[in-house]
Amino acid sequence: MSSTDQKPASEAPKSPSDIQAQELPHQCQLVRANKIAAALMEEIKKGLAEAERKPLLVGFLANDDPAARMYAKWTAKTCEKNGFGYELREVNKEDLEDAILEANEDDKVDGILIYFPVFGTRHDSYLQQLTALHKDVEGLSHKYIFNMYQNIRHLDDNKLQKSILPCTPLAVVKILEYLGVYNQVLPYGNRLFGKTITVVNRSEIVGRPLAALLANDGATVYSVDLDGIQLYTRGEGIRLRQHRAVDTDLTLADVAPKSDVVITGVPSANYKFPTELLKDGAICVNFSSEKNFDEEAVMKRASIYVPAIGMVTIAVLLRNILRLMENRKKGVEV
Amino acid sequence: MSSTDQKPASEAPKSPSDIQAQELPHQCQLVRANKIAAALMEEIKKGLAEAERKPLLVGFLANDDPAARMYAKWTAKTCEKNGFGYELREVNKEDLEDAILEANEDDKVDGILIYFPVFGTRHDSYLQQLTALHKDVEGLSHKYIFNMYQNIRHLDDNKLQKSILPCTPLAVVKILEYLGVYNQVLPYGNRLFGKTITVVNRSEIVGRPLAALLANDGATVYSVDLDGIQLYTRGEGIRLRQHRAVDTDLTLADVAPKSDVVITGVPSANYKFPTELLKDGAICVNFSSEKNFDEEAVMKRASIYVPAIGMVTIAVLLRNILRLMENRKKGVEV
Repeated sequence: MSSTDQKPASEAPKSPSDIQAQELPHQCQLVRANKIAAALMEEIKKGLAEAERKPLLVGFLANDDPAARMYAKWTAKTCEKNGFGYELREVNKEDLEDAILEANEDDKVDGILIYFPVFGTRHDSYLQQLTALHKDVEGLSHKYIFNMYQNIRHLDDNKLQKSILPCTPLAVVKILEYLGVYNQVLPYGNRLFGKTITVVNRSEIVGRPLAALLANDGATVYSVDLDGIQLYTRGEGIRLRQHRAVDTDLTLADVAPKSDVVITGVPSANYKFPTELLKDGAICVNFSSEKNFDEEAVMKRASIYVPAIGMVTIAVLLRNILRLMENRKKGVEV
Repeated sequence: MSSTDQKPASEAPKSPSDIQAQELPHQCQLVRANKIAAALMEEIKKGLAEAERKPLLVGFLANDDPAARMYAKWTAKTCEKNGFGYELREVNKEDLEDAILEANEDDKVDGILIYFPVFGTRHDSYLQQLTALHKDVEGLSHKYIFNMYQNIRHLDDNKLQKSILPCTPLAVVKILEYLGVYNQVLPYGNRLFGKTITVVNRSEIVGRPLAALLANDGATVYSVDLDGIQLYTRGEGIRLRQHRAVDTDLTLADVAPKSDVVITGVPSANYKFPTELLKDGAICVNFSSEKNFDEEAVMKRASIYVPAIGMVTIAVLLRNILRLMENRKKGVEV
């Protein structure tokens, strides 16, 4: 070394033994949904600036359920705060069908949201499917769900109109994009290739569609529920154009340690994911309103932990309204 | 569904059997080094615009080796093309020591590069260590190598002057950043937490420092060579402040299928990585000048394949010159 390399003792390299004695605290990143939602809201603001007029979301309330009323208030507040119009229409159960059909035909209405339960029976599904496809902000119309499972991204053959995704699964996708799990170097549609994801809960509402959606984007997905574990993939080399699901004899102890991401959505206050099964440095996301991870335990193993996703779900709802407006503007009636 | 949902037959959803029959080609992304280098060059241009004067790199050539002369020409061309000054100083072997010391003291010289071999003996290492720390563009001074292994990122206690990393390992880091393997959501220094990486080759020049560097950034690294596989990590929960290396009894068949990234650097035309061991969707990077992957075979399994890194290495060399200038500007003589 040259003479200019001489340095005072305080800057001399520490001896390896000094350094090896040092331990850092585990550095898991707790990422709150509002931070992720803020990034989405920026995108939504841009979309709103380009919209021809203020979007109008209509919410239908036809029950006395206090939770539904609460949700209605919350939607109203979020819309108003973010420059979206909102109108609550309170109707009798019996008048709801006509009211929906009327809103379907009303050009001033851009999105329709029904606060369920209404009858609390299969009739509610009928009402849900009554919402016009091009006004269904929640993406729960049969065609949207079909497209999601079949990995069909557009409504029309010319690919002008994008299919709408259900809010909660889409919120999880947006979270995984934000967290860098989707690899931007890979082409759109394949950005989860090489990633292994466990989804705990296989409900028809969120867990199963989410597993399918992630597998359609290229991931190897283990869908975990009380009746066993299913594997969702697009096959070796993601050569299939949409996922296939197969039953397995695997246990959580087999699949969790292999998973880059673990997503939970168990609607029970008693359920806790066994964090000792997590791969060191896994990414953990909980979409249940219950805390499916013990916070202290998960923070000891995960690299990133997202404890709740509500704020992202509402951002995605607003995004869906804009997307519906774009679809209508692109004109082909579907 | 409402009447507005009726659509012509051509837009009707295809039946699942129609769709399941379709197979896509495997979509591995071949990413060329020049594309990655271009992104780095943008950053370098900005740094150059802020520099007080045109940086000057001095190359010392003291042998008749045609490869060294070729490399000298190539450095000259790259410097000139990118707004960096370059001066080739051809000297006798015996005069090289004095010439280096003179350049060390010359304020007009920002970076020094010696084209090895000179004597082809241990004396070459002595010459390498003669380069002043603050002009060593290749990052091969003992202090830089020490800092890299010990995960010390700065030269001074006030953290004003960044330690320089050797060009080839740093080029691989920049490639993995570009490819999204480094997770930007995690804090600097921990961005590979949760990632498993296999490095084939444990030479002192690139393989071993690279394994250490990646482990220091939080990865679980398997370092593979003829004499066995070593595991480099910062321990469970990356709580250690720098990596530890341990010998293992593992085989390539144990570690390759677990690896998100496989990096090869075997300097032999005969060596081919057994691609059947790759995880479906792995990221593969070759830093050897020989093709360590059979291109057709690797493209069948990988999600991303980078066949060579030379262009990134030269970009990193230019970046190191700018960094050395910043360090000198920040003034504390080290």
